[in-house]
Amino acid sequence: MGSDSDLTVMQAAASFLQQLNIAFELTIVSAHRTPQRLMSYAATANQRGIQVIIAGAGGAAHLPGMIASITTLPVIGVPIKSSNSIDGWDSILSILQMPNGVPVATVALNAAKNAAILAAQIIALQNKNIAEALEHFKQTMQAEVENKITETAKIWNNEFDKRK
Amino acid sequence: MGSDSDLTVMQAAASFLQQLNIAFELTIVSAHRTPQRLMSYAATANQRGIQVIIAGAGGAAHLPGMIASITTLPVIGVPIKSSNSIDGWDSILSILQMPNGVPVATVALNAAKNAAILAAQIIALQNKNIAEALEHFKQTMQAEVENKITETAKIWNNEFDKRK
Amino acid sequence: MGSDSDLTVMQAAASFLQQLNIAFELTIVSAHRTPQRLMSYAATANQRGIQVIIAGAGGAAHLPGMIASITTLPVIGVPIKSSNSIDGWDSILSILQMPNGVPVATVALNAAKNAAILAAQIIALQNKNIAEALEHFKQTMQAEVENKITETAKIWNNEFDKRK
Amino acid sequence: MGSDSDLTVMQAAASFLQQLNIAFELTIVSAHRTPQRLMSYAATANQRGIQVIIAGAGGAAHLPGMIASITTLPVIGVPIKSSNSIDGWDSILSILQMPNGVPVATVALNAAKNAAILAAQIIALQNKNIAEALEHFKQTMQAEVENKITETAKIWNNEFDKRK
Amino acid sequence: MGSDSDLTVMQAAASFLQQLNIAFELTIVSAHRTPQRLMSYAATANQRGIQVIIAGAGGAAHLPGMIASITTLPVIGVPIKSSNSIDGWDSILSILQMPNGVPVATVALNAAKNAAILAAQIIALQNKNIAEALEHFKQTMQAEVENKITETAKIWNNEFDKRK
Amino acid sequence: MGSDSDLTVMQAAASFLQQLNIAFELTIVSAHRTPQRLMSYAATANQRGIQVIIAGAGGAAHLPGMIASITTLPVIGVPIKSSNSIDGWDSILSILQMPNGVPVATVALNAAKNAAILAAQIIALQNKNIAEALEHFKQTMQAEVENKITETAKIWNNEFDKRK
Amino acid sequence: MGSDSDLTVMQAAASFLQQLNIAFELTIVSAHRTPQRLMSYAATANQRGIQVIIAGAGGAAHLPGMIASITTLPVIGVPIKSSNSIDGWDSILSILQMPNGVPVATVALNAAKNAAILAAQIIALQNKNIAEALEHFKQTMQAEVENKITETAKIWNNEFDKRK
Amino acid sequence: MGSDSDLTVMQAAASFLQQLNIAFELTIVSAHRTPQRLMSYAATANQRGIQVIIAGAGGAAHLPGMIASITTLPVIGVPIKSSNSIDGWDSILSILQMPNGVPVATVALNAAKNAAILAAQIIALQNKNIAEALEHFKQTMQAEVENKITETAKIWNNEFDKRK
Repeated sequence: MGSDSDLTVMQAAASFLQQLNIAFELTIVSAHRTPQRLMSYAATANQRGIQVIIAGAGGAAHLPGMIASITTLPVIGVPIKSSNSIDGWDSILSILQMPNGVPVATVALNAAKNAAILAAQIIALQNKNIAEALEHFKQTMQAEVENKITETAKIWNNEFDKRK
Repeated sequence: MGSDSDLTVMQAAASFLQQLNIAFELTIVSAHRTPQRLMSYAATANQRGIQVIIAGAGGAAHLPGMIASITTLPVIGVPIKSSNSIDGWDSILSILQMPNGVPVATVALNAAKNAAILAAQIIALQNKNIAEALEHFKQTMQAEVENKITETAKIWNNEFDKRK
Repeated sequence: MGSDSDLTVMQAAASFLQQLNIAFELTIVSAHRTPQRLMSYAATANQRGIQVIIAGAGGAAHLPGMIASITTLPVIGVPIKSSNSIDGWDSILSILQMPNGVPVATVALNAAKNAAILAAQIIALQNKNIAEALEHFKQTMQAEVENKITETAKIWNNEFDKRK
Repeated sequence: MGSDSDLTVMQAAASFLQQLNIAFELTIVSAHRTPQRLMSYAATANQRGIQVIIAGAGGAAHLPGMIASITTLPVIGVPIKSSNSIDGWDSILSILQMPNGVPVATVALNAAKNAAILAAQIIALQNKNIAEALEHFKQTMQAEVENKITETAKIWNNEFDKRK
Repeated sequence: MGSDSDLTVMQAAASFLQQLNIAFELTIVSAHRTPQRLMSYAATANQRGIQVIIAGAGGAAHLPGMIASITTLPVIGVPIKSSNSIDGWDSILSILQMPNGVPVATVALNAAKNAAILAAQIIALQNKNIAEALEHFKQTMQAEVENKITETAKIWNNEFDKRK
Repeated sequence: MGSDSDLTVMQAAASFLQQLNIAFELTIVSAHRTPQRLMSYAATANQRGIQVIIAGAGGAAHLPGMIASITTLPVIGVPIKSSNSIDGWDSILSILQMPNGVPVATVALNAAKNAAILAAQIIALQNKNIAEALEHFKQTMQAEVENKITETAKIWNNEFDKRK
Repeated sequence: MGSDSDLTVMQAAASFLQQLNIAFELTIVSAHRTPQRLMSYAATANQRGIQVIIAGAGGAAHLPGMIASITTLPVIGVPIKSSNSIDGWDSILSILQMPNGVPVATVALNAAKNAAILAAQIIALQNKNIAEALEHFKQTMQAEVENKITETAKIWNNEFDKRK
Repeated sequence: MGSDSDLTVMQAAASFLQQLNIAFELTIVSAHRTPQRLMSYAATANQRGIQVIIAGAGGAAHLPGMIASITTLPVIGVPIKSSNSIDGWDSILSILQMPNGVPVATVALNAAKNAAILAAQIIALQNKNIAEALEHFKQTMQAEVENKITETAKIWNNEFDKRK
């Protein structure tokens, strides 16, 4: 992440990765304050065994795109609605609108959890346990909705059904 | 892709995948005109050996998100500035802003080539040939820029350097 | 509605339908978490006697459009400014900008009550009681404004009127 | 429609209604140039046997909302990207964002055909022929996509399938 | 104004008119709930001696434009960021973007005071007292800023000035 | 106007004023290239007998607001979608969003004709001939629409009416 | 700055200049309330020894551009999200979108500190002390991030590193 | 500049610098394709005698900000409406919205000439010739407008003046 103030948003990614038992690093790489670190971090990531990089940043968010310019690992960008952002539009556009040749896989504003899920989906292609964990996660989400459907049905005396 | 009119944009993805010798399907799945096909296509993709799905669509672009709701494969979304789109904003927002639990890896407006590169980056994690091809592609891009730098230096008689 | 968190907004629709004694179902259909339920719900709505479907959702709001892709019943979409929405723009555009062939009758942001009124207007075409109730509702709204006009006239000592 | 210049867009609605053999009026009602006509047109529509009103307008598009303020018939609004519109945003927002109590069923920018389909869906609730025609129309759309899928399969020699 | 909820904003106009001793009416005319009143209010304004109409409204704000469609008096529109408005954009665009032939003099979002000043400027063309009052008001504004300049100079020990 | 390139838009204002026989000056005052002229032009306008100032400008359009900062005459601003404008948004916002105390009567993007009509409406308050000319203009607009209604009725064989 | 209400934002500029021991004036120049002062302030700045002007303003923010129209000193504009601003868009566009010939060096919304840093960078070209202070400031920023990196490493037990 | 396709826009900067006889380099530095070059170019600029860096880029435009992260020289950013840009919004926001500590002096969309003028204004602080050339340039601009004023006065027979 580009700043420690992004942690409130980004820890949702960490939580999901922990939940699926996927090893990860959580650290700060500031594109604008530590550009040398950005360069070396991105350049060594592959040989250090990293498979996917999740980069979250706000405002003129150059971190995801600059990492993608250096490594060929998949880079997932999380636009963050930080305090210096204009409703998140600057974060979204400066992460999403990468030129041809250098993609960043952008997820929704503040959607750090989705970034982690996407990373898990990528790793799952070569890891059956994670693939199964993702299937299980998807079923759990569905089950949660179904519970809410049942609860809603109790509260809302569906007049329509009664008539029939 | 959601419609055959998206082909002008999406064939850039096909070209890149061919260039890297990555097997792919190119077909039409219309979320709004063939919803049953959407369901079965996404549900069977995994067992048919597909590893990454690239989905391009314009306007109220539901195709990438709906595919992601069914499969746990990574889904890459390409917002298309189609004729029924408002400067691309509708395509971008309806692909990007997925709720937590169901990510779509969104690339830039019309950036079908970047979608293919991202797909290749994902597959490269388990395929050394593709990983090397991606490294080569990155170096070629860099070399092309360096050629242009040389050409530019010829045309623009850099006065600054002369003075020194 | 796409999630139980949409209930705060959507219950205004329920209230209006109750007020006009129109039978209705209120339930959760998540396009992204329960896509199968979305398919079967929309496919069976007509034979179950439903005449109009009101679908409220936020963010990348695919629920209304996907229901409209399956049924030929009129579908009314309520864009919801949910917590994961960018000021509501994503909800509006992903509901409104449907391609030709598959309309969604979109109402204003969070305007669940208007969705219910629109549904009542549709049903009223074949139901005189509801048609009269709508006329009455319109007159009541007008009467409420007229009361406020009278109150305003008391507070604001209209110098202009005094002159005349 | 608000002006004869809107005809290029709005005739797509007329064509669809003719195709389904639904009787309709196509005329000009300018909210800003013929406000009296707007009032009387909307006030008498019901007794003249009209069931649904489709109103298309561009720029500060007041026609759909003002008609809805007078009648309790369902009003469908078509935002038009006319020459005096700012990329359509003014048309969309001034039609869509109606206050509670007075809904307008808004369709996509320039989506006159969708307005007609929506009108047909509303009328179909009490007319089996139109309901069947709509079902047929939906199947035709699907068949057209399926034809394109077949054609696409011919052109794009799907390498993925060959490998398997 | 279109609703009594607009009073919080619009009373700034009333205050300024009172300050300049300009006679005025403050009342509610709802374009969407009392369209007949809108018609008669606008149609009789001229003969009732009104010279300028200030119309404030939010959301799909049709009040200013519809009044301008009926009367040839100058109409000043105040876009209001009401609770049902999308950050004020809908209010601004549906008031500002009037078609040729029917102008509305639009002021800034919520700028009811400016609407009153503009009305006073219009009336001042034929009323020397008001013209002088406006000159005085302008000088007072300037004097207030000059006081603040003096205060600021005290607090901020201008190093630059000291040097000179 | 701020530049001679604005003439294509602004001459519509001149034409309308000529049509109503209203005396006017058409000249260039560049806020950014001739600021002194801006100051003196605005400061002397009143004593030179000018009653209303129409100021058209594009991009960061400071001309209307700066004139309004100097004179107490009504100032009408025309946002122009010039070549250096971002779809007109910059022109609109820098003219419209004036602070309290200094209003600019803003009309629609490029709506120079409406600026002239508004100016005429202001002058008409003290000039019966112009007031009558405006009434006549309004009736002519209405008559033109009515002609188009008749023509439209000929072309579109209104099936609805035939059935009845 | 254009108003004393801008001080909350602008004092960050003052603090930075104090920190680097750069002499400065902090005062109010209202483009719309004290246009004469604007003219004389900008016209005399150069001869009074000022080298860079930082101008902060909100809404229709004409101050920076108007100063740039008068002086050839570099002018830095700070768009301020003041109470009368639409999410800052009006401030940004009316400062940024200056016509060719009259540049304003625009910084991010509310980024008064960055304006001061930019001013220091400009002055540093002819002042070695300030140049060194800026280098020191850049290193301090980097050191602060590195401290946070160390702290983050303590809290987040990097599972990834453990495995290796 | 970030790409040779930006030359059409950026050569306006070169022309102005040539006109004022200011030495300059014009070259390509692609943030995303030649990140190493970006690093070394920015790191050595100061010692190579460069005083101001003008960086133009489109889309997710990271070049200006990343240069500013490395050097303490003033960096001027030119947002370019390139083919992969969304109406220029992405270019503007990713250049303008830099975090505190790392300013970029942003000019208007495509305003390469203004970037050069701003650079000249900065250099002029220590170079009397350039300062005088800028004064001359400003007077020439003013003279050109005055010529156009004279021409406009000939064409537009100012009726207002005649009457007086």
